[in-house]
Amino acid sequence: MSEQPFRSEQPFRRMVLIGIGLVGSSIALAARKQGLAAEVVAVARQQATLDEARALNLADEYLSDAAESVKGADLVILCTPVGAFEAVAKAIAPHLEPGAILTDVGSVKGHVHRVVGPLVPKGVHFIPGHPMAGTEHSGPSAGFAELFENRWCILTPTDDQDRDAVERLTWFWKSMGSKVDLMEHEHHDLVVAITSHVPHLVAYNIVGTADDLATVSKSEVIQFSAGGFRDFTRIAASDPVMWRDVFLTNREAVLEMLGRFLEDLSMLQRYVRNGDGPALEALFTRTRAIRRSIIDAGQETAAPDFGRPHGGEPDDQPKSE
Amino acid sequence: MSEQPFRSEQPFRRMVLIGIGLVGSSIALAARKQGLAAEVVAVARQQATLDEARALNLADEYLSDAAESVKGADLVILCTPVGAFEAVAKAIAPHLEPGAILTDVGSVKGHVHRVVGPLVPKGVHFIPGHPMAGTEHSGPSAGFAELFENRWCILTPTDDQDRDAVERLTWFWKSMGSKVDLMEHEHHDLVVAITSHVPHLVAYNIVGTADDLATVSKSEVIQFSAGGFRDFTRIAASDPVMWRDVFLTNREAVLEMLGRFLEDLSMLQRYVRNGDGPALEALFTRTRAIRRSIIDAGQETAAPDFGRPHGGEPDDQPKSE
Repeated sequence: MSEQPFRSEQPFRRMVLIGIGLVGSSIALAARKQGLAAEVVAVARQQATLDEARALNLADEYLSDAAESVKGADLVILCTPVGAFEAVAKAIAPHLEPGAILTDVGSVKGHVHRVVGPLVPKGVHFIPGHPMAGTEHSGPSAGFAELFENRWCILTPTDDQDRDAVERLTWFWKSMGSKVDLMEHEHHDLVVAITSHVPHLVAYNIVGTADDLATVSKSEVIQFSAGGFRDFTRIAASDPVMWRDVFLTNREAVLEMLGRFLEDLSMLQRYVRNGDGPALEALFTRTRAIRRSIIDAGQETAAPDFGRPHGGEPDDQPKSE
Repeated sequence: MSEQPFRSEQPFRRMVLIGIGLVGSSIALAARKQGLAAEVVAVARQQATLDEARALNLADEYLSDAAESVKGADLVILCTPVGAFEAVAKAIAPHLEPGAILTDVGSVKGHVHRVVGPLVPKGVHFIPGHPMAGTEHSGPSAGFAELFENRWCILTPTDDQDRDAVERLTWFWKSMGSKVDLMEHEHHDLVVAITSHVPHLVAYNIVGTADDLATVSKSEVIQFSAGGFRDFTRIAASDPVMWRDVFLTNREAVLEMLGRFLEDLSMLQRYVRNGDGPALEALFTRTRAIRRSIIDAGQETAAPDFGRPHGGEPDDQPKSE
């Protein structure tokens, strides 16, 4: 894929990461590796999290006071679960400096515009964002500098947003390896409802169902999970608070897409009940083609079984770091 | 896990694999590697499949006539999609030799007992089986010798089945690296309905739903699939005919487990609609623990994101062979 060379920019003076979990710590590592900020500040409410971040040498400064942290910052990124954004925004708003960029990494964007937008002082560039990257692990030690490489980051600036600020934030994400797309926040929330939120909801649900059965024991579910079930357990192992907040703040789009999913599942249930072989085969053939498209788009590995190790005991070491 | 050492056995004289796709070809490779059969025979209806198997040097003999192939065989394994079993069994039954073991690798077992069982001549040991192993790839070239290592193979002999024959087949699977469990076929079909069949149905369904939307384009679904959706596309890329047959032949258990899944999903839908944060967080916390148990049981990699490559373009080479 050929891309336009993008404008080179000066590094940020002071980048503040409010929240230093998987995504915050990965930004810290990637931004430092690429020299995108002279000073990196990690902010967390809990001392244990700050200690963990410090032990990993993720930042130049470690603070528990968000309001204090943003003084002098030209880039502030909200990296907590979305449910905490409003409170954080209230705390930092009076201290944000004119010309600073305020962005976030939350998985929903309409809510962020609604609750954070009105709190942002004039002269601060508010550009909500969403890097579509992650793993099922969480916390400061889960981060790695390559997390954003070849993944999309969606920015949802308002129409009247300063073009230079948007370009500067685009440069920041591209420098960490992301592809960047601009989108209306309403559309973003629909796109992620089907590509991310409903898949998570369904995965959480099936894992819960399997855990609850009386006729099949939990140990059987675990033992025989390689038949397909274990695939679902990965995203159903994602951070519970982060995902709680996603479903609390993207309700309408999730319910809309879940409704579509359920309509289709009713039809599929009927195919099974009626023993409609041709209809089943037609669907299963069509879905196979979509994976091929995702692989061709560079968004998935072509290796069978995600490249999981086969043979002997599965290795216990992360391979991606 | 400590296991009883199992009885050593003589290799089979003539092993016949009727169907030589992913599982058949993997058995051919593993059995030859471990010296489990003096002669390996690959059977397929289509000449192109036989040619592919021959080019891969999977067997000693390549035949299109199943009836002919089983003459002199002491191990016959049905490896076609389950829907073909009845016709194959009718063709081979008159030619099966007394003392031979007839088994299969189908994902459903009640149906196999019902349609194949009555056709098996006296003196032939009929022991249906199900190796819970696979990838989303299919065809003779998808096979590899390590496919069964550390995966469970379930055998569902009838109560009156010859114990020596069951032990001999157990030895065969263990020699290819499998763990072996015996189960009633009714229970097997429930276990796989929740650990394998409903997960596949749900994955096929969500991929179909995403493909059908008017509000989100197919290219957006592909582009932004890394948010969770792409995980589902793997099992939704499995062999369409094999899976059609699974749903046609394990209907009752699938509908039962799908009913449970839908009940739970209605509840979860209500949590989202009502904004019930504590209920969402409680479920998401419980499901996270289940993945840990699967990893601890050696049935899943602990590497984040299944060990998918991060950084740069995803590699295009299978890593498991």
